[in-house]
Amino acid sequence: MPIIRVEMFKGRSVEQKRALVRDLTDAFVGAAGGTPDSVQVVITDVEKSDWGTGGELNSDRFPD
Amino acid sequence: MPIIRVEMFKGRSVEQKRALVRDLTDAFVGAAGGTPDSVQVVITDVEKSDWGTGGELNSDRFPD
Amino acid sequence: MPIIRVEMFKGRSVEQKRALVRDLTDAFVGAAGGTPDSVQVVITDVEKSDWGTGGELNSDRFPD
Amino acid sequence: MPIIRVEMFKGRSVEQKRALVRDLTDAFVGAAGGTPDSVQVVITDVEKSDWGTGGELNSDRFPD
Amino acid sequence: MPIIRVEMFKGRSVEQKRALVRDLTDAFVGAAGGTPDSVQVVITDVEKSDWGTGGELNSDRFPD
Amino acid sequence: MPIIRVEMFKGRSVEQKRALVRDLTDAFVGAAGGTPDSVQVVITDVEKSDWGTGGELNSDRFPD
Repeated sequence: MPIIRVEMFKGRSVEQKRALVRDLTDAFVGAAGGTPDSVQVVITDVEKSDWGTGGELNSDRFPD
Repeated sequence: MPIIRVEMFKGRSVEQKRALVRDLTDAFVGAAGGTPDSVQVVITDVEKSDWGTGGELNSDRFPD
Repeated sequence: MPIIRVEMFKGRSVEQKRALVRDLTDAFVGAAGGTPDSVQVVITDVEKSDWGTGGELNSDRFPD
Repeated sequence: MPIIRVEMFKGRSVEQKRALVRDLTDAFVGAAGGTPDSVQVVITDVEKSDWGTGGELNSDRFPD
Repeated sequence: MPIIRVEMFKGRSVEQKRALVRDLTDAFVGAAGGTPDSVQVVITDVEKSDWGTGGELNSDRFPD
Repeated sequence: MPIIRVEMFKGRSVEQKRALVRDLTDAFVGAAGGTPDSVQVVITDVEKSDWGTGGELNSDRFPD
């Protein structure tokens, strides 16, 4: 039943997301127990223009 | 003031979302009290390639 | 796989939460499809002093 | 380390989001302490057809 | 209808939360528009032992 | 800047949470890139009586 939610900058490939889901699930089960089947991972891609750090949009801090 | 948040696979129609908002609101008020006016429902459509279960992307488990 | 998350004022009984989980799950399946088994409902009780509306803490707006 | 998350109707400009990130960060630091550098703000634009209030989709309540 | 959610280390007083709700609401309305009455702010206090940064629990990084 | 959020049943020890934060951070960086320093992990312990699966409270499905 555990739910893992990831917010990260947009731009990762499906291959990276596939590895992320697999490795976060393994990490969870290894550290906290339970079975992989019960683990949900939900990924949210966030645009740099929707994410601020230190009072500044990351699209301004790190222009492409 | 209650806030209900729904994450589900992308693909439901506006008609389904309309019914979902109505029926979740009714269910909330019936079970927990309060008035419908105060209930917020926020729906998030999630791509299968952003949702992993059992360590696998759902886009791999259930290809379209 | 759908995940329903509810934030509401603290104070509901286990009986109310039991009904809430059952009725939100039924409402979801009725409106959006899927099977009840796959539906997760996570409830968060929020203190009135942790919830503001209109710029005011609800513990100030609605003292017990 | 504080994380501020904003859900609002879609449609604000980058200029408004830039001001929002700056002003929410300042408001946080002024009221709760800490340094601006540690504050994260994540904005989620929500379609009116994904947000219900009082049991009705906001796309029905407030058509464009 | 906008919803602002704040996660921060446990330990702020009710006075600080009162100021936080007021000032975040003002900041939102000033930068993004709308009316204060429609703004919800939900605060979550997080224990340092439930928050990791850089792979370490903050209760280890910043012991009381 | 990535934020990882974990919801799981209450009951894990600080040692398990310490391992969880370390291993999820490593898993993230290995699969998606970035540096460990930027990764935040926020853990939420959920009571079985606040979590429903298949329309039933987990405190009813799995009594202690």
